[in-house]
Amino acid sequence: MNTLGNRLKLTTFGESHGVAIGGILDGCPAGIDLDMDAIQMELNRRKPGQSKLVTQRKEADEVKFLSGIFEGKTTGTSIGFIIENTTQRSNDYEHIKDVFRPSHADYTYQQKYGHRDYRGGGRSSARETANWVVAGAIAKQIIPQIQIHAFTSSVGAIFIDKPYQDLDFSLTESNDVRCPDAASAQKMESLILDIKKQGDTIGGTITCVAQHIPVGLGEPIFNKLQAELAKAMLSINAVKGFEYGAGFCAAQMKGSEHNDAFNANGTTKTNLSGGIQGGISNGMDIYFRVAFKPVATLMQTQEALDTQGNLVEMKGKGRHDACVVPRAVPIVEALTALVLADFYLQR
Amino acid sequence: MNTLGNRLKLTTFGESHGVAIGGILDGCPAGIDLDMDAIQMELNRRKPGQSKLVTQRKEADEVKFLSGIFEGKTTGTSIGFIIENTTQRSNDYEHIKDVFRPSHADYTYQQKYGHRDYRGGGRSSARETANWVVAGAIAKQIIPQIQIHAFTSSVGAIFIDKPYQDLDFSLTESNDVRCPDAASAQKMESLILDIKKQGDTIGGTITCVAQHIPVGLGEPIFNKLQAELAKAMLSINAVKGFEYGAGFCAAQMKGSEHNDAFNANGTTKTNLSGGIQGGISNGMDIYFRVAFKPVATLMQTQEALDTQGNLVEMKGKGRHDACVVPRAVPIVEALTALVLADFYLQR
Amino acid sequence: MNTLGNRLKLTTFGESHGVAIGGILDGCPAGIDLDMDAIQMELNRRKPGQSKLVTQRKEADEVKFLSGIFEGKTTGTSIGFIIENTTQRSNDYEHIKDVFRPSHADYTYQQKYGHRDYRGGGRSSARETANWVVAGAIAKQIIPQIQIHAFTSSVGAIFIDKPYQDLDFSLTESNDVRCPDAASAQKMESLILDIKKQGDTIGGTITCVAQHIPVGLGEPIFNKLQAELAKAMLSINAVKGFEYGAGFCAAQMKGSEHNDAFNANGTTKTNLSGGIQGGISNGMDIYFRVAFKPVATLMQTQEALDTQGNLVEMKGKGRHDACVVPRAVPIVEALTALVLADFYLQR
Amino acid sequence: MNTLGNRLKLTTFGESHGVAIGGILDGCPAGIDLDMDAIQMELNRRKPGQSKLVTQRKEADEVKFLSGIFEGKTTGTSIGFIIENTTQRSNDYEHIKDVFRPSHADYTYQQKYGHRDYRGGGRSSARETANWVVAGAIAKQIIPQIQIHAFTSSVGAIFIDKPYQDLDFSLTESNDVRCPDAASAQKMESLILDIKKQGDTIGGTITCVAQHIPVGLGEPIFNKLQAELAKAMLSINAVKGFEYGAGFCAAQMKGSEHNDAFNANGTTKTNLSGGIQGGISNGMDIYFRVAFKPVATLMQTQEALDTQGNLVEMKGKGRHDACVVPRAVPIVEALTALVLADFYLQR
Repeated sequence: MNTLGNRLKLTTFGESHGVAIGGILDGCPAGIDLDMDAIQMELNRRKPGQSKLVTQRKEADEVKFLSGIFEGKTTGTSIGFIIENTTQRSNDYEHIKDVFRPSHADYTYQQKYGHRDYRGGGRSSARETANWVVAGAIAKQIIPQIQIHAFTSSVGAIFIDKPYQDLDFSLTESNDVRCPDAASAQKMESLILDIKKQGDTIGGTITCVAQHIPVGLGEPIFNKLQAELAKAMLSINAVKGFEYGAGFCAAQMKGSEHNDAFNANGTTKTNLSGGIQGGISNGMDIYFRVAFKPVATLMQTQEALDTQGNLVEMKGKGRHDACVVPRAVPIVEALTALVLADFYLQR
Repeated sequence: MNTLGNRLKLTTFGESHGVAIGGILDGCPAGIDLDMDAIQMELNRRKPGQSKLVTQRKEADEVKFLSGIFEGKTTGTSIGFIIENTTQRSNDYEHIKDVFRPSHADYTYQQKYGHRDYRGGGRSSARETANWVVAGAIAKQIIPQIQIHAFTSSVGAIFIDKPYQDLDFSLTESNDVRCPDAASAQKMESLILDIKKQGDTIGGTITCVAQHIPVGLGEPIFNKLQAELAKAMLSINAVKGFEYGAGFCAAQMKGSEHNDAFNANGTTKTNLSGGIQGGISNGMDIYFRVAFKPVATLMQTQEALDTQGNLVEMKGKGRHDACVVPRAVPIVEALTALVLADFYLQR
Repeated sequence: MNTLGNRLKLTTFGESHGVAIGGILDGCPAGIDLDMDAIQMELNRRKPGQSKLVTQRKEADEVKFLSGIFEGKTTGTSIGFIIENTTQRSNDYEHIKDVFRPSHADYTYQQKYGHRDYRGGGRSSARETANWVVAGAIAKQIIPQIQIHAFTSSVGAIFIDKPYQDLDFSLTESNDVRCPDAASAQKMESLILDIKKQGDTIGGTITCVAQHIPVGLGEPIFNKLQAELAKAMLSINAVKGFEYGAGFCAAQMKGSEHNDAFNANGTTKTNLSGGIQGGISNGMDIYFRVAFKPVATLMQTQEALDTQGNLVEMKGKGRHDACVVPRAVPIVEALTALVLADFYLQR
Repeated sequence: MNTLGNRLKLTTFGESHGVAIGGILDGCPAGIDLDMDAIQMELNRRKPGQSKLVTQRKEADEVKFLSGIFEGKTTGTSIGFIIENTTQRSNDYEHIKDVFRPSHADYTYQQKYGHRDYRGGGRSSARETANWVVAGAIAKQIIPQIQIHAFTSSVGAIFIDKPYQDLDFSLTESNDVRCPDAASAQKMESLILDIKKQGDTIGGTITCVAQHIPVGLGEPIFNKLQAELAKAMLSINAVKGFEYGAGFCAAQMKGSEHNDAFNANGTTKTNLSGGIQGGISNGMDIYFRVAFKPVATLMQTQEALDTQGNLVEMKGKGRHDACVVPRAVPIVEALTALVLADFYLQR
């Protein structure tokens, strides 16, 4: 229920405004010389307050490892870690104690559990994803030969109009929006700032490319590689869609257009399949695209439902993102790394 | 690896041209008076040879239950079933014994396993989905109050141009393409027949709507309702994408457009969320859309790779679908039923 | 619920008097050249009617493989198999339709499920163990280097009074009771025949020794090697106890007596630990002992409870074992093979 | 691998001399008003240094909950907790850095993982069981109607010579050895102190009785109630055997002696079955007995193996128990509670 993975398992806990969040990564092989700075750097990429585009909540977001690492190297036992919640401003949330915000999880949690930590969304907060980033950063170090590059491919109606092959992934971190195409990035930033000024929010998409994949990752029936990737991506709070390879475009294509002809060495001339055949990686690039809805919390007046069944006016308080996509880039990478490392260890 | 579900588990086996395919459904509650005709009817909807649009392979596709049912009622023990493969024409596949067909699983299976049943795609054949349909038909009877309606929403570039609320689902079975909009259906059929004449294939999409959903199905973190639906759908052989609620369109929307305002009774005025908040059903309709690529086997000459590393010309033989979408409608429903029944039993 | 194992998973189905029993073995590696005679031979060892000591129910007990094997070799996909129930004499059980037999599962099944297949015990019948023997026979072929020797070590108060190191395991099959010590075997057989004449039954123990174990099988916390062995053994219907290494005797020993001193090559001078330290195999012999209660069905008059709450007299009919231990020897071996192969594949 | 349970899952981490140990309890229902003192009291029962009989290592052993509880009540989300290691005296273990102690997990961990935290046994330390006690104390509050009573039933050759029905469980905590029979308790204490003076250790057994069990807990095939109990008990570091009901004695009995005749209300006149039929609870008391080997660390000179393959003399240092049984009583109860609550929630 709070666990992802089969051979490499991440189990997590934590509420947005509790003492700490954290997790246990189980199944990590022994003997990996962990690069702790690389882990913290991934957390910093996800961290609130990192740029003018994102929520100004300030969290130290420092991960503290409690087990499974000895003299800098993994021991093969379960890795426990926590991230303390240092700047809870729970009073920001007193006003939602008895109110269900539209398009949030307040109502469904209340109905399912009867008792919930309403502060900052409690368990439903995207703060949880910091746990995933920690685990994903370790997963990346389990499969160092695989390169995972996620980036913002659209914000609102602004899309990068190039295939990923024409992009220089080293530029992704060069702008706040995490778009490797400079011209698009600038437009996306302007749009987000404009939307923010309106007290509104905006959706977008992230594309992720994984390269240098060994042939044979994935299982043929219910644990297909693409199925586990889809499941992982749809676990991200705001995600509404997933497509890989030619994706939804494939639904408009003919087989003679879509099929990927082989080269003599087993690679393919095109890669509309997205690096997976029959649920199993074929060694070509795996790429997929993930759709994010706009953040539900607005700095505008909206109608909400209170626990007494009254419709009430409310206005967003607290610290929120006008567009979640830039901060979600490291989250997409982290989950991708977890899925790929899981299959890698299952071979 | 060959198992789907947590509380209601389906485990399957079978190759396209082996003795039989089959499965074990574990976790079905005791005391359900199974409607056997309803189960067989679902199988018939998926069956090859049912119309001029689909593959002319003739399979009896009769399910034989071996356990778990006594005097017509489930006993709560595991339900074993098989479907015999009656009309294997394996000689149709001698020509692919040493050849990897483009955009099939031949190459990845060979690389992963070293030894494979090449006849008819073996385990990678969509014949496996008959197992899912059997299990899904039982799952529907576990949750009779929930209505699940899947239908063909596009073939190639032909889309139904109406929201699902304007469709009459009782018409879905009135045409071979399984599209409840008569005008669109006719165009889709023409397109498929045209494509078939070319020896080519075409993709499409299926939309699925689940109604009368209890509030509270789904788990908040990694077993979100949408994540399990996505995983199930991406398990279908030709599926390239999944979106629910507003889906990829949400990525272009503003929060003020996308948020679903509440009614006083907890329902919502709009339902761009697709019936799920925070991974948990809110009682509104769940709806999602699934993209299918065109079938890879063409009745045209294509270049393939042989096991010696030579590129060779090959032409599809055997009996194949020009468009998989009409036959996939009951498969989408079956998997939806399995996921929903699984969560229903977990409550 | 009907599944054993983590990486090598056996899922089963079947009632004693249904159409067939069977299972799916998932996770078997590809490329194993299966010895089908060896599998059938294991089934024959478990089969009813094999000697005058055991139940005279005659079952062909022929396993039929449906998938996962191609040209005699495993393909790495799930292996489906069935064993048909050929000689159901369900009328033998009409008399227990509305009666709960003492120390059987009739009452608990009725309470738990409300609806049960009462014929021959239904799902609770030891007939299920034929499935385990099939899967275990495959598991043995996954780990051919490991030798597994189970044998009857006691019947009633008659014990082999030698350590296993002094026994010749090649003699186990030389007598009907499956005891490698000829003198003890003769006494055990006499006792069983005597008990049978009384219409009574008798318990016993089986000892199992697994040799040539690689170092490192097992997991350190909750999937300790001994814990999984214990779980598997306690799954056998009549089993009441499990001990490994020095077992219950260890509870009376001092540490200075119990500790196993090392040899310079990492082996140990004694092996009171039973080949496992900290949940992980150390390469020494793994040995354990399993206690079986006497069969509950007696050919005597006993008091039973009917579904109306009346105590009624009943006498066992049907075909039963006076001592289940000889036929349980291959079952203990099969489960041991499944557990060890599972850990072997997890390494 | 570090997880116990199906519906109620405990996942743990932590090394004896790391920063902290801890765990995540997943699947606890919402709305339970947790008695925190009761949880801490269970920890105190397991704690080192509590009496002259046990190790004098002093640990505060204060559990700190990090999530899943809000305003004193469970929220249905995962409960994270840690117990800090406050008094690590790791220098006590410098002498075993390069040495494998006899009958410890040093050698098998080194062989399996290549890199291990040798301090205090690292992950193999019984310190881990503090995590289980925390989770078990919560589990007890999930099933408050069930009473679980474990007690020391033997130390060395000193046994309580009464059936459990003649014992007053309220006396278990009245002596340091946790034996409810005062006369036996005194002899056990004397024996332990005597053994301790010799620098030796001694084994023993714990009996556990669970009362007021609902009918229907347990699954019929591989998750039999007794199988899960056995697995849980064999997870405790020093445990060598498990028996329930008549246990190993049943192996010497006749069916006519062993069968439990019914009363008209469905209870049974005797209970040699130990409250379970066909893997499912029948409502009678569940009772079982667990065998503990003597602690391997002696305050005597023993021969050990160093990593260079030399046999070396070593003497135990640090703080150890002469008999682990008194402190294991709350551990047995905790695991029993976890297994029963898990099945309770699965119903």
